[in-house]
Amino acid sequence: MEKLGKFEAIFYPKSLAVIGASADITKFGTHTLNTLIKFGFKGRIYPVNPHAGEILGLKSYADLKDIPGCVDLALIAVPAPAVPRVLEDCAARSIGVAVINTSGFSETGEEECVKLEREIAKISKEKGIRVIGPNCFGVYCPASGLTLPPGEYYSRESGNVAFLSQSGGYADRFCRDAKGWGIRFSKVVSYGNACDLNETDFLEYLAEDQETKIIGMYIEGVKSGQRFLQTVKEINQKKPVIIWKVGLDEGGRRAIASHTGALGSRKEIWEAFFKQTGAVRVNSLEELIDTVLIFQHLRVPCGRRIAIIGTGGGSGVDSADACERAGLSVPVLSTKTVEQLRMLLPPVGASAQNPIDLGNPWTSPSDYKKIIETASLDPQIDALVTVVWQLPFFYSRRELFWSFFQKLVEAPAAVGKYLRKPLIMVLCATPTEAEMLEAENEWRKIKDRYVAAGIPLYPTIERAVKATVNFIAYQEYEKRTKARALLHCPPRWSI
Amino acid sequence: MEKLGKFEAIFYPKSLAVIGASADITKFGTHTLNTLIKFGFKGRIYPVNPHAGEILGLKSYADLKDIPGCVDLALIAVPAPAVPRVLEDCAARSIGVAVINTSGFSETGEEECVKLEREIAKISKEKGIRVIGPNCFGVYCPASGLTLPPGEYYSRESGNVAFLSQSGGYADRFCRDAKGWGIRFSKVVSYGNACDLNETDFLEYLAEDQETKIIGMYIEGVKSGQRFLQTVKEINQKKPVIIWKVGLDEGGRRAIASHTGALGSRKEIWEAFFKQTGAVRVNSLEELIDTVLIFQHLRVPCGRRIAIIGTGGGSGVDSADACERAGLSVPVLSTKTVEQLRMLLPPVGASAQNPIDLGNPWTSPSDYKKIIETASLDPQIDALVTVVWQLPFFYSRRELFWSFFQKLVEAPAAVGKYLRKPLIMVLCATPTEAEMLEAENEWRKIKDRYVAAGIPLYPTIERAVKATVNFIAYQEYEKRTKARALLHCPPRWSI
Repeated sequence: MEKLGKFEAIFYPKSLAVIGASADITKFGTHTLNTLIKFGFKGRIYPVNPHAGEILGLKSYADLKDIPGCVDLALIAVPAPAVPRVLEDCAARSIGVAVINTSGFSETGEEECVKLEREIAKISKEKGIRVIGPNCFGVYCPASGLTLPPGEYYSRESGNVAFLSQSGGYADRFCRDAKGWGIRFSKVVSYGNACDLNETDFLEYLAEDQETKIIGMYIEGVKSGQRFLQTVKEINQKKPVIIWKVGLDEGGRRAIASHTGALGSRKEIWEAFFKQTGAVRVNSLEELIDTVLIFQHLRVPCGRRIAIIGTGGGSGVDSADACERAGLSVPVLSTKTVEQLRMLLPPVGASAQNPIDLGNPWTSPSDYKKIIETASLDPQIDALVTVVWQLPFFYSRRELFWSFFQKLVEAPAAVGKYLRKPLIMVLCATPTEAEMLEAENEWRKIKDRYVAAGIPLYPTIERAVKATVNFIAYQEYEKRTKARALLHCPPRWSI
Repeated sequence: MEKLGKFEAIFYPKSLAVIGASADITKFGTHTLNTLIKFGFKGRIYPVNPHAGEILGLKSYADLKDIPGCVDLALIAVPAPAVPRVLEDCAARSIGVAVINTSGFSETGEEECVKLEREIAKISKEKGIRVIGPNCFGVYCPASGLTLPPGEYYSRESGNVAFLSQSGGYADRFCRDAKGWGIRFSKVVSYGNACDLNETDFLEYLAEDQETKIIGMYIEGVKSGQRFLQTVKEINQKKPVIIWKVGLDEGGRRAIASHTGALGSRKEIWEAFFKQTGAVRVNSLEELIDTVLIFQHLRVPCGRRIAIIGTGGGSGVDSADACERAGLSVPVLSTKTVEQLRMLLPPVGASAQNPIDLGNPWTSPSDYKKIIETASLDPQIDALVTVVWQLPFFYSRRELFWSFFQKLVEAPAAVGKYLRKPLIMVLCATPTEAEMLEAENEWRKIKDRYVAAGIPLYPTIERAVKATVNFIAYQEYEKRTKARALLHCPPRWSI
């Protein structure tokens, strides 16, 4: 059988060895094996362990040499001191790539551990076996059924989002949390200490990967700053690169050093990096999810002039505040739009000016649709945000109000699909009482409806606004870059 | 029967009239009546309606005059043009206070509506009947069983938090959302257009109210700036005043004008206001809840030096980032603390430096407790934040891990009660998939456990940090004010 290319072996291995799996379920290797079986890896899996004859129903091999046929990928979860020998065995067995989950290397800061990592890097180079890790979770690729160790419940559907993460924990949390928001992945890599393959290597692959349209990253530190900058700058012209860079202050840098051993760098350098590459900057897992979500759904161009449509209750006031605080504008609508809106709104308690206030939560769904359409046609407006509170759950005669509410909340989903301008939905989060779990359940169902309709939905106006600003800033950068290219102007920033 | 004092009639009426209740459940007055009955108002309720003999099981009166005995409070929900005559009837019937729910007054910006509001104010002044509103939801006071129209599900328990809100919608949402966080109220007032009783009148009452220890406010605009500033400044020395001021930009101001008719004012004036009064400034409903929560739970003084304890997974890195971005510090621990922590931590994958990384989520609960205690004794540290991910739900053999996790997550709650320094818990939010509702349910149970233990818990590190910074800033202001008073120094700021 022919040996697969490096990245093909990483993402689409036909066979893999799990080295360090045992009968003990609390061990990392066993956990990995169990997860792969449960998730449904499509190739052959060979557990390797000197003692066990069978692990989790699979025949186990005492030695790599005993495995019949080709092995494309090795997952290594043996204690750190044993890793170099295992890696050499893998190379001898002609395995092209190894994922080293084991930690206890340069991230500890201890001399012997740092040396051990250098030894791995040396073996990798000399024996021609490529390494992901050490101190990482590995790869999730739904198309091949490959998943990170905790990823039994990740989506089995493929999508167009790739994620590169130095942290295994955050790779895991992003995959898990993004699932409910309808974000689907092409490839996810947790690469840890990056002693061989690093963030830029993966980026270069993803740039050409047909399945990937959006790239997210969690970065503690990078291996080669200049190469990374150039790569991000180029890719970002074609595919948005959304980066969560952590550890720019003292405590964060200290945490990084002991987490993946990376060297955090100065704040100013990263400020310049973001300006120069146009990469989208986010500051938390939540913002990462929210931003990927809006990039996944919105295709049309979008400017900063927002129309807000609130279903009463003063939600227009703080929505306008949130927009304006974030650098968006909430402009006055044209006289024509205001006149048209007045015809659709109740005479008292409502407002036809921007923010548009429907006055009460019992607006007719068909009027709600018309109001959204009318506002979207105003030439002063680039995008629309509509804010809905899930009120009826907190009323007597819930059934009466609830059936009405379900029709109401369907209106933006129905109309949003054919508007010429982006529509963003805010369905306010439900209370956290244990007794209100059913309201949360209904919230989730409506959220799923919006996911299916391809309309970004957020639980707070602040989250909607942050994501929208990130989306717009990317488009503004693109526009500037294109204009500059046309004029043959030099870039405005340099490091 | 003796006539009650103004505020006694507002918060503890022995009898009230609901004017405008009818057989139609979708009408505001009927909704109010229904809510009061369901919530369990402790006094007598008299529906007033010219047509109906009985409404929701209560005898209805065609005229206020027909009601036997004393009426302390009137709730008015008749159409705007009818309000002046009804208010005169109330005054004639010796009712001391009226809540006017009806909208359609100065908030519309239309001349005749503004005139109508002036007429109400005039009647109030001339006939000696005090008015809350118009365009408001009214009063929630669990001790007397009084509640806002949508407040059937509010807590029946009393607490020490008061809330004053120009917006009825936000009064409602705050009461609803705060309930699940264990926030309990003394008094809540939605006062709308404030044509008679305004924010400062209520503040003066709350300053002396024994049941109120913390005051929250949602403000669109104030009636008398100087009097408001002086009152907040004085009260804030004794009871924290937490203010969400909206509408500081163009769109927000426009929204306010059509919402409660208030005049928003210049940003700079409000900046100066917050500096001079030391009132705690928040920017969203979420931040308001989070901030009230921390004030409700933390009694001990607190400084800006934070120890972070993460249960693995790189959560220390972004927690340190979030702290440092917000102006908190994550200092190096003393050598002694680090040595003691090393004894309690696994040798690999963990960190005894701040942020402290437990290395994996399967730390023994008793070690976790000792680690928290040890960190809290470090003289470099003022407060502790511990971050836990609800991981086991996403693992095979969930039961095995879950029973362990429940013991683990109990550790901070058990130890937090007797620490000399504040402990803040972050239990990361669960994914939003419909199938993961059970994880959300478990999250809520743990959250309730922390509410009961009096330890503030947040679903993200960002929310925890914002609340902590608000709490610390208030204490710093207090300290400065006291130091200044001792030195007889003039204040540093003036408007």
